[in-house]
Amino acid sequence: MVGVLTTKNQTINYQIHTIMENRYFKDVQKIIETEISSKQPSLLYDPIVYSLSQKANRIRSGFTLIGCEMFGGNMENALYPAVGIEIFHNSILMHDDIIDKSPVRRGQPSVYTKWDENTAILSGDAMFALANIFMRKTDLNFIAKIMDAFTRITIGVCEGQRYDLDFETQRNVTIAEYLEMIRLKKAILLGGALEIGGIIGDASEQDLQHLRTFGENIGIAFQLQDDWLDMYGDTEKLGKIRGGDIAANKKTFLYLKALELASEEQAIRLRHYISPINFDPIVKFNAVSAVYNELNVGELTKAEMQKYQALAMDAWAKISVSEQAKQPLKEHAETLLKRHLS
Amino acid sequence: MVGVLTTKNQTINYQIHTIMENRYFKDVQKIIETEISSKQPSLLYDPIVYSLSQKANRIRSGFTLIGCEMFGGNMENALYPAVGIEIFHNSILMHDDIIDKSPVRRGQPSVYTKWDENTAILSGDAMFALANIFMRKTDLNFIAKIMDAFTRITIGVCEGQRYDLDFETQRNVTIAEYLEMIRLKKAILLGGALEIGGIIGDASEQDLQHLRTFGENIGIAFQLQDDWLDMYGDTEKLGKIRGGDIAANKKTFLYLKALELASEEQAIRLRHYISPINFDPIVKFNAVSAVYNELNVGELTKAEMQKYQALAMDAWAKISVSEQAKQPLKEHAETLLKRHLS
Repeated sequence: MVGVLTTKNQTINYQIHTIMENRYFKDVQKIIETEISSKQPSLLYDPIVYSLSQKANRIRSGFTLIGCEMFGGNMENALYPAVGIEIFHNSILMHDDIIDKSPVRRGQPSVYTKWDENTAILSGDAMFALANIFMRKTDLNFIAKIMDAFTRITIGVCEGQRYDLDFETQRNVTIAEYLEMIRLKKAILLGGALEIGGIIGDASEQDLQHLRTFGENIGIAFQLQDDWLDMYGDTEKLGKIRGGDIAANKKTFLYLKALELASEEQAIRLRHYISPINFDPIVKFNAVSAVYNELNVGELTKAEMQKYQALAMDAWAKISVSEQAKQPLKEHAETLLKRHLS
Repeated sequence: MVGVLTTKNQTINYQIHTIMENRYFKDVQKIIETEISSKQPSLLYDPIVYSLSQKANRIRSGFTLIGCEMFGGNMENALYPAVGIEIFHNSILMHDDIIDKSPVRRGQPSVYTKWDENTAILSGDAMFALANIFMRKTDLNFIAKIMDAFTRITIGVCEGQRYDLDFETQRNVTIAEYLEMIRLKKAILLGGALEIGGIIGDASEQDLQHLRTFGENIGIAFQLQDDWLDMYGDTEKLGKIRGGDIAANKKTFLYLKALELASEEQAIRLRHYISPINFDPIVKFNAVSAVYNELNVGELTKAEMQKYQALAMDAWAKISVSEQAKQPLKEHAETLLKRHLS
């Protein structure tokens, strides 16, 4: 399904993924278009509209909508919080691109590249402020619980970001530390987005816990999948070169698992090649992937991913609504586990 | 009054200004010390503790405490929101220092200088998240109104920051635009801090309006005073060299007022010297200050400041509590109008 999103400055085509087939999703897009674009000062709001208009999977706002719908909640109440979740996520990406010096986001120049760093800092801050405003545009009865969940998410994501940055220079990162980092940086936002939908659907505390558990575990599975795909994925489908994480010396699950299992000699090889030393990229890729293959870390990563997927599905099974009502959540998660997260 | 504030890494002496003589203020300091320091990851929280431990006038949290006390509110309910206001303010400064390339803040290295830019971006984001958490630690009955005020402040401050940045390169800035910029960037936080105190004191809508009006007008008066002090202040008391704004080509009220009144010849002189051209600093200062003196903008700035001070006092007079109860607010404002805002 292809739609046209008109922003102040441009008309772009965008692809709507499965999760966006939700019939309320176009209302989410509409809110972004009408309530943020054409506001002043334009150098604050234009980068926000630019960032929110890019082709993206919208999985997080989708989770909020699905979480509400599953419990038969009033979908009108879920729209603004869903947008708030999406805005917060993109505010983090806007700052993350400065931190990681990533010139490209979703195939387009990142905000700090298209404008400048100061613009990306300020518009990112404004998005954080806007997210808090949007989260509260719902039925008054739900706001306190929504904000409890949302503030817990926001500080957690900041902590996860910091751990991720710390790990770049930290010599010994354990797998437990890595999993906790991705839980904070990536997974709690998915769990929280779903939980917030559930809150608006007036779900019980127990069901909210199941939604959170589902979202967090599926979020960890997504990241493990990302790590695996980068090494073993279909490069055509991914639309990027294999081994980007090796080239960037990233301490992925594959790398940490390999180090855990490595003989002294293998560990030396790994640490030698995953380092700031300037190797020929193909030599580097082949050396690291040889160790990965020797230790079978590809399969071990898939097994770990499946472990978290199973934990998510256990939680899903416990959600106290009909199979039919909760089927879309399962389907979306399964669809997303077959593709690359953006 | 001099106290000792112990943080995780250092013991520093700090001067408590008048506003902090409020007997609840030490509780605010205590909250900062106990609830943020020693949290992990340390590279996220240490810069936050560092920033919040610096000698500062704490006028904003002071306003929240005074606003509550004036209406006989339960001061316990005001403590965390007061801390939240202070944390938000400092989060903005942390990002502002990156944007303005300011290596020093309150006589100490700014966070991006002491650590690095990425650290200042992330810790600033975490402070914004923390501020939202702290604002909600109060009586449940007040949270909705507090958050309405707080979110309005946060997006307004971002807009003000952007206008300020835009004005650096915008050739024609009107005085009305300048006043709106400082209202957003500086004054609404003061008005909002006071209003939030009033909300916790269960003040009427009308009184909340008066608090907001007082705070916003006094905030504009403070900034006009800053502009005046930079040019005509007592350099010994200020602890800095006169004419910093001229050296930095800042479009202050003095500059904009001078341009408004200038003859064609005077305008040419002003625009020539307030520009990126590399002049001898003394030649530049003398040339600009000559125009200022010809046009008497020092006195005109003082008059404008007094106009806003009078508007603030009009609002103060209307607050429906006893003279005795509202006296501290007036005194604090008057004390602060005699000194430099930090």
